[in-house]
Amino acid sequence: MRDFSKDHSLLSLNTATVRKQGDLLAIIEACARHEIRAISPWRDQVATVGLDAAVKAVKANGLKLSGYCRGGMFPADAAHRAAARDDNRRAVDEAVAFGAACLVLVVGGLPHYARPGSAISHDLGAARQQVEDGIGELLDYARTAAMPLAIEPLHPMYAADRACVNTLEQSLDICDRLDPGRTGALGVACDVYHVWWDPNLYRDIIRAGRERLLAFHVCDWLVPTRDLLNDRGMMGDGVIEIAKIRQAVEAQGFEGFSEVEIFSELDWWKRPMDEVLKTCIERHKSAV
Amino acid sequence: MRDFSKDHSLLSLNTATVRKQGDLLAIIEACARHEIRAISPWRDQVATVGLDAAVKAVKANGLKLSGYCRGGMFPADAAHRAAARDDNRRAVDEAVAFGAACLVLVVGGLPHYARPGSAISHDLGAARQQVEDGIGELLDYARTAAMPLAIEPLHPMYAADRACVNTLEQSLDICDRLDPGRTGALGVACDVYHVWWDPNLYRDIIRAGRERLLAFHVCDWLVPTRDLLNDRGMMGDGVIEIAKIRQAVEAQGFEGFSEVEIFSELDWWKRPMDEVLKTCIERHKSAV
Repeated sequence: MRDFSKDHSLLSLNTATVRKQGDLLAIIEACARHEIRAISPWRDQVATVGLDAAVKAVKANGLKLSGYCRGGMFPADAAHRAAARDDNRRAVDEAVAFGAACLVLVVGGLPHYARPGSAISHDLGAARQQVEDGIGELLDYARTAAMPLAIEPLHPMYAADRACVNTLEQSLDICDRLDPGRTGALGVACDVYHVWWDPNLYRDIIRAGRERLLAFHVCDWLVPTRDLLNDRGMMGDGVIEIAKIRQAVEAQGFEGFSEVEIFSELDWWKRPMDEVLKTCIERHKSAV
Repeated sequence: MRDFSKDHSLLSLNTATVRKQGDLLAIIEACARHEIRAISPWRDQVATVGLDAAVKAVKANGLKLSGYCRGGMFPADAAHRAAARDDNRRAVDEAVAFGAACLVLVVGGLPHYARPGSAISHDLGAARQQVEDGIGELLDYARTAAMPLAIEPLHPMYAADRACVNTLEQSLDICDRLDPGRTGALGVACDVYHVWWDPNLYRDIIRAGRERLLAFHVCDWLVPTRDLLNDRGMMGDGVIEIAKIRQAVEAQGFEGFSEVEIFSELDWWKRPMDEVLKTCIERHKSAV
């Protein structure tokens, strides 16, 4: 297991962590101040400053991208399917422009939540089939662009509205069907917030193996959690056995960044950017 | 699949659904008014009016108990373990006094949440082992009393503080280890709120089979869900495919009540008891 206690050279900042404190260019400047070497930006943050300006700032600062957030939201009715496909292809193109390690896929839940305007359906099985079909179609495009796709299973509390892929097992079943050769073109993003509770977690990290482990995200689960979406905790403030999970992931040969991703309306989004980054770095050393 | 559209003879009321509107004796009177034939009361509601008075009221009104809520909260440090054991034995005794169909087990999460005062531990695996040990010990007592124990897997969002058993698969693994003979002494409570998202749901309902399916609970999952604990929806107001799940459960031979259990700080707990029961009955006919 790699030693994180001495420096933060393997920390990546998911830029949603400070999305309320400044735009992407300001966040990149802050990363330079704090000697953060990698980020994972969101498409809406990139769009706000413009793709060219964002890519230029990333390259000028020598930053790497541990991932690009995000493609997905596959379930849609027939009228919205082509738009979903095109949108996801643009996400691949943008990830390529940055030289990102992977495009993270938040696959979407029921169609009217994944692609608003779609006809209402509560057929979860059908949504899951659409997800797999959508990933399969995007994979052809992403392979040509040499951009790995990382399916991120989300916590089951998001099954209806954000992602109906909710466990590593389910993600890996999809990977095995679409990429049986384990080519590296398709894998998973393992975010401790989403998977920590899973009784099969350690079994499935082994099943994933090095070829399928494309990203590793950290934050913490607070008790109580006051909001389903935006009450994630700073590492060390909650109950997740983060180091134990990281050890399991690295035992498979994972050598990527450890990406800090905290959505926190009630706490961290209210603090100054430099304080948040300083705390992320401290906790990355002591609690990851 | 049984026809629920004509009457509500198979509806059971989990009495937490109207816990803010009156005490257990008032709830039992309301059930009589609405011709509800079964309930599932909570221990704290029973304690408030006294066990003898509660049993007397149940029997005077000819009510059945689809379950008794609840035993469990097994994880504890050494100093709190004997109290947990004794507390659970009293829960079995109370369930017997009512002639309940089963004692529902909410197994508990980390020890300092399950049994406050216990030393802090984030070792989820250890908590899970304590749960299994605790159920095994209680099972001996419950067998003697002929009271079936129903493990209720809770949604993964409760893994830390309420139940570290979070899927039917995990529950059934415990059942198979502690009761390999499928004697009926140990099984599961299948609550649609906790299991609807599970990619293995229908596989595991079949695996459970008639012998393990001891209780069936209904409510709905709202989008958005505004509170992790007390924002459950009335059947038909959310996204759960309730009838599909009930069909799968009944295909295994389940013949028990369908128990309505809604915790709703923001909506149903604020309405008059008669309105809530009337709505439960209507929705039981149209959306279960």
